[in-house]
Amino acid sequence: MNDYQFKLVKVQGEFVWHHHTDTDEAFIVIEGSMKIEFKEDTIELNAGEMFVVPRGVEHRPIAENECKIMIVEPRGVANTGSAESARTASNDVWV
Amino acid sequence: MNDYQFKLVKVQGEFVWHHHTDTDEAFIVIEGSMKIEFKEDTIELNAGEMFVVPRGVEHRPIAENECKIMIVEPRGVANTGSAESARTASNDVWV
Repeated sequence: MNDYQFKLVKVQGEFVWHHHTDTDEAFIVIEGSMKIEFKEDTIELNAGEMFVVPRGVEHRPIAENECKIMIVEPRGVANTGSAESARTASNDVWV
Repeated sequence: MNDYQFKLVKVQGEFVWHHHTDTDEAFIVIEGSMKIEFKEDTIELNAGEMFVVPRGVEHRPIAENECKIMIVEPRGVANTGSAESARTASNDVWV
């Protein structure tokens, strides 16, 4: 909507530490559970729960088991934010 | 997130016809089902389904039975858009 994307993603395992300089990032868990590690804290998110990671905050998503989530963020945001890596996905590609 | 709000709402009955001049409006059905009438069409949304009403498009949400939805839109958008009415809710009031 407008210039925002709603991305449905299946995640499993540890993602890379990263932050997004210019935008907040909303996580909504559809099925399963996941954690988001911060430098000094870790939160757990279960199905139906939502968390907004503020811009600039280093975080690492982790899902022990496969977890279906929806991510809401502006179009064109790199999934790994500041941390270009093998995990950086092409953006704006319809799959 | 950023300047967007995620509004959890229980809806039932017919809403007023309206449109939003400046923004798209995303509907995500959490529980139950609802319809959105357009001037020439009606869509049905069930739990887990999402629809984005483009800016400027006249629409009327209808829920025969109580339905839990999440609405995503920029902060400060009036729920009735163009159509000020008894259904117009105060905005940015935490409940």
